[in-house]
Amino acid sequence: MSRFEVLILGNSSATPMYGRHPTSQVLNFNEQLFLIDCGEGTQMQLFRYGIRSTKINHIFISHLHGDHYLGLVGLLSSQHLVGRQADLHLYGPAPLKEILDLQFKHSDTRLRYALIFHPTNESQAELILDTPMLRVTSFPLRHRIACTGFRFDEGKRAASLKADAIERLQIPTAYLKLLKKGIDYVAKDGTVFPASELTTPPPPARSYAYCSDTVLSPDYLPYIADVDLLYHESTFMHDMVDRAKETFHTTSLEAGEVAKTMGAKKLLLGHYSARYKDLQPLLQESRTVFSNTELSEEGKWFLV
Amino acid sequence: MSRFEVLILGNSSATPMYGRHPTSQVLNFNEQLFLIDCGEGTQMQLFRYGIRSTKINHIFISHLHGDHYLGLVGLLSSQHLVGRQADLHLYGPAPLKEILDLQFKHSDTRLRYALIFHPTNESQAELILDTPMLRVTSFPLRHRIACTGFRFDEGKRAASLKADAIERLQIPTAYLKLLKKGIDYVAKDGTVFPASELTTPPPPARSYAYCSDTVLSPDYLPYIADVDLLYHESTFMHDMVDRAKETFHTTSLEAGEVAKTMGAKKLLLGHYSARYKDLQPLLQESRTVFSNTELSEEGKWFLV
Repeated sequence: MSRFEVLILGNSSATPMYGRHPTSQVLNFNEQLFLIDCGEGTQMQLFRYGIRSTKINHIFISHLHGDHYLGLVGLLSSQHLVGRQADLHLYGPAPLKEILDLQFKHSDTRLRYALIFHPTNESQAELILDTPMLRVTSFPLRHRIACTGFRFDEGKRAASLKADAIERLQIPTAYLKLLKKGIDYVAKDGTVFPASELTTPPPPARSYAYCSDTVLSPDYLPYIADVDLLYHESTFMHDMVDRAKETFHTTSLEAGEVAKTMGAKKLLLGHYSARYKDLQPLLQESRTVFSNTELSEEGKWFLV
Repeated sequence: MSRFEVLILGNSSATPMYGRHPTSQVLNFNEQLFLIDCGEGTQMQLFRYGIRSTKINHIFISHLHGDHYLGLVGLLSSQHLVGRQADLHLYGPAPLKEILDLQFKHSDTRLRYALIFHPTNESQAELILDTPMLRVTSFPLRHRIACTGFRFDEGKRAASLKADAIERLQIPTAYLKLLKKGIDYVAKDGTVFPASELTTPPPPARSYAYCSDTVLSPDYLPYIADVDLLYHESTFMHDMVDRAKETFHTTSLEAGEVAKTMGAKKLLLGHYSARYKDLQPLLQESRTVFSNTELSEEGKWFLV
């Protein structure tokens, strides 16, 4: 089974304290690395956890609050300095381009690799990366400024061949790909061997959804249905729900309810307010409604 | 004696590695805090070393390479979020204002405190902060883009009174301030008591100079003469002097020579290239010409 895991680089909200860092995650899909948000310090966190930044080819930025993107110019500049040549695709709100251009202009930086910018759509969901192996969709969240979540869907996976049967029937190699696609094998004598008997069905495709930052809203729920792993911000505990609404954030109870309602298999909390040194209460609160909740912990990988 | 010390928050050049951070320092002058450069991660470093960011009222930015200022928006935003109300003075290259304004605009941030921006002069030295206790001068360095160093000069200090003599002669309190200023005391019977006999001379005023980033050049040397502590970048060792010149940086040997020539009492190296994991060779090289050299070490305070 190919790898599909997310590494937490930062789990703090806007004022980083207690050694926590602003938001950033690395998604490893089959040894392709995707960076989701890039708060201040991300390049140092990547180094700390042994991630080779040059292996990241796609970066997704949810919105333009500093704690979600201020590490970007540093990371892009360092990629330049270490001699990166591969294209780098960047997805984020349109004004991000202007911000980067202005900073590169005044630092007299001309990147030696191609930075390909894809503005995200703040008003409707869009398929922004479409490969047979993985599809990425951006969708609007509801925050103080334009903000999108991202959903990563694994492509349909191939069936596995039953090696014993293949060997016994001496099926020619040329047929194997067809079998995996569900096409039956017809022997020279006309006997039909159903593909379903010569293969085991593929494991179900997996999916990951990332929601930060947002107030609770029915608008984004359809886009995060039935994921294997849901990352959902939980800036506050529910006794602060008024403050959460006022600042367009969510509580850990609400995050648990979203996971439950939308059929997530597992929930990951994060984007913790600086008011919480101990995070266990947030975890317990979410578990009252959705037991398979975990705290996002910096430096820890979570399976999708 | 009032406190005059510098804390190293980051000693790395542009690609931070081995747990090092980009450039930033805190100068504590008599419990007033001054921030010099603000590389990515500075707010987390301040937290790590127990510095209360709200006590910083002046920030000095040398130039607009990311490793010297990318922590600024995060720090300024966090100051806003924690409810800072005191004015904050920012000194740096003119385009810095435009960069900050653009980022605050797109994050919809309206600072709740006054950020007072003072553009630095890239072509000549200027007295940028002038108080009786401390004067700060910016002066041009020679780098790929406009860059200034900063010099901090303690004001003339008052003489100390000789308590025994004051007591014995029953000198009225009103005269004590005059004595400290060197004005003789004339008793009612006309006897003159020279101030020099009733006081001990003030300790010499101290000074700190900060030079990062720059190629070796005679142009800036006059501005760093005779300082107690000189911070001078030493990105490379001297076998890389060609590379240093090409990238407008300095070697540790050159830093040592500058300190020696300009009469510094002590030299602090920094802004180390990512090629050096072990920094001892840079220290040894500088010490061949200037023995009182030290490595700037993150988290360590150095007396001016």
